[in-house]
Amino acid sequence: MQPNLVSTFQAYGEAVDQRVNGAFEAIKYGAIGVIVRSMSLRLDDIPHTGTMSYGNLPSSKRIPAAAISTNAAEKLSKLLKINPNLKFLLRQQCKTYKDVKSYNVIAELKGTEFPNEIILVGGHLDSWDLGDGSHDDGAGIVQSMDIINIFKKINYKPKRTIRIVLFMNEENGLRGALKYAEISNKNKLNHIFALESDAGGFTPRGFSFTSNDENFELIKSWKNLFEPYLIQSFERGGSGADISPLNNDKNVLAGLRPDSQRYFDYHHTSIDTFDAINKRELELGAFSMASLVYLFDKYGIIK
Amino acid sequence: MQPNLVSTFQAYGEAVDQRVNGAFEAIKYGAIGVIVRSMSLRLDDIPHTGTMSYGNLPSSKRIPAAAISTNAAEKLSKLLKINPNLKFLLRQQCKTYKDVKSYNVIAELKGTEFPNEIILVGGHLDSWDLGDGSHDDGAGIVQSMDIINIFKKINYKPKRTIRIVLFMNEENGLRGALKYAEISNKNKLNHIFALESDAGGFTPRGFSFTSNDENFELIKSWKNLFEPYLIQSFERGGSGADISPLNNDKNVLAGLRPDSQRYFDYHHTSIDTFDAINKRELELGAFSMASLVYLFDKYGIIK
Repeated sequence: MQPNLVSTFQAYGEAVDQRVNGAFEAIKYGAIGVIVRSMSLRLDDIPHTGTMSYGNLPSSKRIPAAAISTNAAEKLSKLLKINPNLKFLLRQQCKTYKDVKSYNVIAELKGTEFPNEIILVGGHLDSWDLGDGSHDDGAGIVQSMDIINIFKKINYKPKRTIRIVLFMNEENGLRGALKYAEISNKNKLNHIFALESDAGGFTPRGFSFTSNDENFELIKSWKNLFEPYLIQSFERGGSGADISPLNNDKNVLAGLRPDSQRYFDYHHTSIDTFDAINKRELELGAFSMASLVYLFDKYGIIK
Repeated sequence: MQPNLVSTFQAYGEAVDQRVNGAFEAIKYGAIGVIVRSMSLRLDDIPHTGTMSYGNLPSSKRIPAAAISTNAAEKLSKLLKINPNLKFLLRQQCKTYKDVKSYNVIAELKGTEFPNEIILVGGHLDSWDLGDGSHDDGAGIVQSMDIINIFKKINYKPKRTIRIVLFMNEENGLRGALKYAEISNKNKLNHIFALESDAGGFTPRGFSFTSNDENFELIKSWKNLFEPYLIQSFERGGSGADISPLNNDKNVLAGLRPDSQRYFDYHHTSIDTFDAINKRELELGAFSMASLVYLFDKYGIIK
C-alpha cells in the first residue's frame, strides 16, 4: 500500500500535540499563558478549538491557553519579530462546567440467521460548541442512521444484527465509547465488524481497515466492486476513535475515508455548520458504507 | 478500465441534448416557447444557462427558450398535473450581440533540447455571464498558468517547449480552439502532448487520456507515481474541448479529472464565483498537472 502524501489528517496528527500539550510543556518553562496557532491548513480568521490537557497538574498550577486563527498567528509572529517585548492581552470567558449524565443512542435491525454476530455502524453525537458540528460528526451520525433507511428501502433483511450506535462524548474523553465497550465486554457481545464515519461528509474515497491478514485478504477481494463508484482506497490503518475500544485480533474495524482536503477548514470551528455539507457527497458516503456493511453481512468474517 | 458510475459529467452529457436541441425539436410540434429544467443534479433555485441551437432555422421560425431552476421545474410539473391548461408567462430580456474580435492568450517556455516538440497546457478564458466562471474555467486558466510558476520555482528548464494557451470562446462555438488548430496545422506545429483543465477546481482525482495503445502503455507505467497523492484514475477517453482539434493518431491529449460531485452545482450559474473555489484543492490540481507535464517533457512520446 502506497503512503497517502496529501492526507490532511496526517498533518493534523503530527501537529496537534502543540495544542494538546502546549500549556503543560510551557508551564515547565515558567509560562503564564499559552497561545497556539489553530490546527488548520489554510490562512483565515477562524480559530479552531479542541482538546487540551494539563496532565495531572492541580488547578493552582494551570495557565490560560487559547488557539488563535492562522492569520492572527502570522500577524503575531511578524509583530514579535519587530518587537520581542510585545504585550499581549488575553481575556477568556470560557468555563468548565460539571459533568452531567448523557447517553449513547442505539438502534438495531436484528439478524435473521446470526443475530449474535453484530455489525456496528456509528459516529459521535457530541460536537464542539462553536458551530453545529455538521462535519464533526453530524455527517457520520446521519450516514450511520441512513444505513437502516437504505436497507429498508431495498427491502434487505440482514442475516447478522446491524446495530447503529451514536456515541456520546467523543470529543471530551471518548466516554460513550469506553462505556459501550465496557458493557459489551461484560455481556460478551460479538462485534464481528464495526464501521465509523468521523472524517466529514465529503466525497467518499475509500476505507481504512484494522484487520488481521486473513480477513484483509477477503476485504481486498471486494475492492473492485467499489472502484466503479470511485471508492479507490482500501488501506490498512486506524478506523475511528469510538469503535477502536472494540478491537480484538479476530474482528474487523473500518473508518470511512472521505476526501480530506477541506475537512480542516471546518474542524472545531464556528463554520462547521449545516451549509458546509453537500447532500450528494454526504449520500455517496452513506451508500458506500451500506455497501460495505452488506458485504460483511453477506460473507461474515474469517474466524 | 472500470466504468465510472458516479460521474456527474456523464449524467450531464446524456441529458444536455434537452437544452441544446429542445427548442429545435419542439418547433416541429408547433411549440411557441420552450422551458427546460436546468442541467443540475441537485434541487435548488438557481437556473443554469448554456449553449442551445436553432439549427439552420431563420430568425422568423425561432421560439423563445429558457432554463428554469430544478425547484421551479418540480413546481411546474406539479402544477401541470393539477391544471393541464396552466398559463405560463415567459418574459426574456436577453439579446444576442454582434460578434467582436477577441484573442487566445499564449505564453511559453522554450525547450532546451527539442524546442519544436510542443507540450500544450490550457483552459478557456471565456465564461457564461451569470457568475464569474470561477470553476468554468477560471480554475483551469489559473492552473495552466501555474505550471510555469511551478517550473520556475523549482528551477526546472524543460527539454521540450511548454506552451500555455488560454483559449477564447469555448462556450460559444470553440472558436479560439478551432482558430488555434487551423494556424497550428498551417505551420505544421508538432504538439506531442496537450493537457486541458476544464472540469472545475476541485480535488484532482486523475486524468483522462486520448492516446494510441503504445503511448498509453507508457502513460500507465507512471500511474504509481501519482497514487501516493490520491491521483488514482488513469482512464482512456476524452480530454478537453479546446485541445480536441489537435488530436492525431500519434500525439497524446489529456484532461484533468477533479472530483466531479459538486461541479454541476455551480456550472453556468450565478454562484460560479471566486468563493466557490478552495485554494488547496485548486493547487493540488495544478501540482498534478505540473507532474504530468514534467513526465511528458522528460520522456516524450513513442513516435
